[in-house]
Amino acid sequence: MSALPEALSEALAGRFGERFSLAQAVREQHGHGESHHTTAIPDGVVFAETTEDVAETVSLCAEHKVPVIAFGAGTSLEGHLIALKGGISIDLSRMNSILRVSSADLDCTVQAGVTREQLNNDLRDQGLFFPIDPGANASIGGMASTRASGTNAVRYGTMRENVLALTVVLPDGKIIRAGSRARKSSAGYDLTRLFVGSEGTLGIITEVTVKLYGIPETISAALCSFEDVSQAVDTAIAIVQLGIPVARMELMDRGLIAAVNRYSGLDLKLEDTLAFEFHGSPASVEEQVAMVRDIVRDNDGKDFEWASSPEERNRLWKARHNAFYAVVSQRANAKGWSSDVCVPVSELGGCILYTRELLKDCKVPAAILGHVGDGNYHVVFAVDPSNEEEMAEVAGINKQMVKRAISVGGTCTGEHGVGTGKIAYMREEHGNAVDFMALLKHAIDPAGIMNPGKILP
Amino acid sequence: MSALPEALSEALAGRFGERFSLAQAVREQHGHGESHHTTAIPDGVVFAETTEDVAETVSLCAEHKVPVIAFGAGTSLEGHLIALKGGISIDLSRMNSILRVSSADLDCTVQAGVTREQLNNDLRDQGLFFPIDPGANASIGGMASTRASGTNAVRYGTMRENVLALTVVLPDGKIIRAGSRARKSSAGYDLTRLFVGSEGTLGIITEVTVKLYGIPETISAALCSFEDVSQAVDTAIAIVQLGIPVARMELMDRGLIAAVNRYSGLDLKLEDTLAFEFHGSPASVEEQVAMVRDIVRDNDGKDFEWASSPEERNRLWKARHNAFYAVVSQRANAKGWSSDVCVPVSELGGCILYTRELLKDCKVPAAILGHVGDGNYHVVFAVDPSNEEEMAEVAGINKQMVKRAISVGGTCTGEHGVGTGKIAYMREEHGNAVDFMALLKHAIDPAGIMNPGKILP
Repeated sequence: MSALPEALSEALAGRFGERFSLAQAVREQHGHGESHHTTAIPDGVVFAETTEDVAETVSLCAEHKVPVIAFGAGTSLEGHLIALKGGISIDLSRMNSILRVSSADLDCTVQAGVTREQLNNDLRDQGLFFPIDPGANASIGGMASTRASGTNAVRYGTMRENVLALTVVLPDGKIIRAGSRARKSSAGYDLTRLFVGSEGTLGIITEVTVKLYGIPETISAALCSFEDVSQAVDTAIAIVQLGIPVARMELMDRGLIAAVNRYSGLDLKLEDTLAFEFHGSPASVEEQVAMVRDIVRDNDGKDFEWASSPEERNRLWKARHNAFYAVVSQRANAKGWSSDVCVPVSELGGCILYTRELLKDCKVPAAILGHVGDGNYHVVFAVDPSNEEEMAEVAGINKQMVKRAISVGGTCTGEHGVGTGKIAYMREEHGNAVDFMALLKHAIDPAGIMNPGKILP
Repeated sequence: MSALPEALSEALAGRFGERFSLAQAVREQHGHGESHHTTAIPDGVVFAETTEDVAETVSLCAEHKVPVIAFGAGTSLEGHLIALKGGISIDLSRMNSILRVSSADLDCTVQAGVTREQLNNDLRDQGLFFPIDPGANASIGGMASTRASGTNAVRYGTMRENVLALTVVLPDGKIIRAGSRARKSSAGYDLTRLFVGSEGTLGIITEVTVKLYGIPETISAALCSFEDVSQAVDTAIAIVQLGIPVARMELMDRGLIAAVNRYSGLDLKLEDTLAFEFHGSPASVEEQVAMVRDIVRDNDGKDFEWASSPEERNRLWKARHNAFYAVVSQRANAKGWSSDVCVPVSELGGCILYTRELLKDCKVPAAILGHVGDGNYHVVFAVDPSNEEEMAEVAGINKQMVKRAISVGGTCTGEHGVGTGKIAYMREEHGNAVDFMALLKHAIDPAGIMNPGKILP
């Protein structure tokens, strides 16, 4: 029930008119992401259209020591958008201009609110694409802020590797530019990567320059199923270790296949499944496929089936992208809770079998899926947040998964970010490096107004 | 002529015995890198063997507010090692243990003093290699500190992309671990990449975990020559834009070929030359070669010649790696001065022609070379540092190159780092983001003891 200082309200209303909202419905919409985390609504919402809008909002909030939370597409899974201490949500969704595309340099600059689907629709005619795809149609700014990745990361890297430069509004309202369009640089501290993954706690990203890629001459997808999940994982590990440059390699356990079939009207075989995509020239794709097919056979995989037409392929990946919603929709009024660990690939088999064991007696609908080429996998649960017992059960499983991941040299979050959901594990993963992170946070945002209560314990 | 506080000298002598040296010859050896920058010798040298040695040295220096400078292989080109304010040089070359290699996960952890050649010699029997190669046989810690790259970066990335985790000694002597062995993570601030490229100004890197790669099934190298350097550059740009995954693509102008022929006993044709290396399966290499050959032909390239045997190939790349020394050795008692800019590839042709123009009347021996696939190129000058007039001339050319690079969206240093040599351009390149870098520096190292006078104006 915190309220804004009247002077701030008046200043924002004077500056932004109808683009500043105090309406309950608008505020509620900005107080949560897409997952199970409790909603906490901001005191007001500013709809920014330019970097200067963001800078002026932050500057006014800084003056009044009022929190600011950046809001993109609202697809956060770890509570990043929750206004724990009230404040102003800065909605960047109207900052949706693609500012510049260079097909010669394979890069572009976009406003933070541009979504990945919007960008790819725009690029298609030029034969280009932006590969990072976290499933949801997230904003590029949000993806940078959480260091997102997704199905293509095994080939193309994550936002960490694909952001070249950023425009950032600092906690005092100053605007800086981090990085350049050069593909590499040794010119000082890597501010770009300091802000990538900082979840709005150090500044607000308003423009992003990213690498692009030519749409491959040949794209080919395939599915194969296994009687046992460990055979699927062994297949994935062998492919990684041989350095075969698959573009996508996704594990979907049989529970997920069932959910996806129902949600997306598919009729995939109800078995633990690996889905592949291959990118390259015809000869290179053919070669990759031949190698993968051999490895699949060695691991008793069955039915190496093609999704050969673009339509069939798109249907497959759309279904995969909707996996989260597919699991959640299995249960009326459920919310999704997605765990998200990443481990060295040699540890992946053990971790997934351990997770299977943990899920054995779990009464909450759950499915395992993963970007197994990176060692990153998820369990999506369809939870009833009002049921304390089951929330505790899922929290317990999540905790065991994280502890196992950290104990084998992995991380508590491969791609969803810390938000509020993983704060409890930061010290276990990073030890006293967390104190160093806190030192940075305090130096950059001494008043603590940038997305307070996220990332750091 | 600054001297160490007696109490510090005594403490270091007590702790390290003969591994702490005040000898003039030892100090002189630690007061410079390999380039033209003026020597400034430290007040003492500690030969560290463990992270704890480094931590205790830093801790003692912090107590006395005495500067500390990390020293690896001594191959710096931008004055990183110069003890501008005296202090202790911490020599890490005895920290040369390879701590762990995982062929299953394609990663390893090494002490900071391990050199890239040592690492690759060790890895070869396991069929693995570490691709980053800045020419010199630098230490992995030094390469991380300067965000080094080299000839393979067009395919494998730079230290930015290849360091997974670090052990770092902070300015107060505390030891932290940044990152993990997970291939990707969204767990908080990217401390790994904050220290990569920070040139010892924020902390001292003592252990590095890096990605490894399987030695490609097929490796093939080729040379082709051009009458005009712009044809060579156009060829390189076309190859990048088509996304052909060449492993190396190096420009060597005719001046460099002459120097290299003499220094390394080769008889390469005296023309502007592109040198390629292709990695992959036999079919993929064949395909890459065919595509490159077509592009070379379209740009009037001649003599697409093979360095087909491993011996011939190694001789070629060894000669390329020695390019810096080859140019410098053309003149008795000369020092090398290597410029180092990186621009978007579409700007590369214009920049290199502009550079040619700048060099037209230059009386100092000079040659152009570059990792043109990344837009990164160098002019190596063989200067006489005692000749003020020629130093001013080279400084002027260097400045014009940098200004041009920055004006087209590039950077003042692609891979050598800032050191003292590029400080003057930091504000021009980064604008007020330099103030933000200074804020970080001050927060992390409030006493300013970590490699003072480097990176920041």
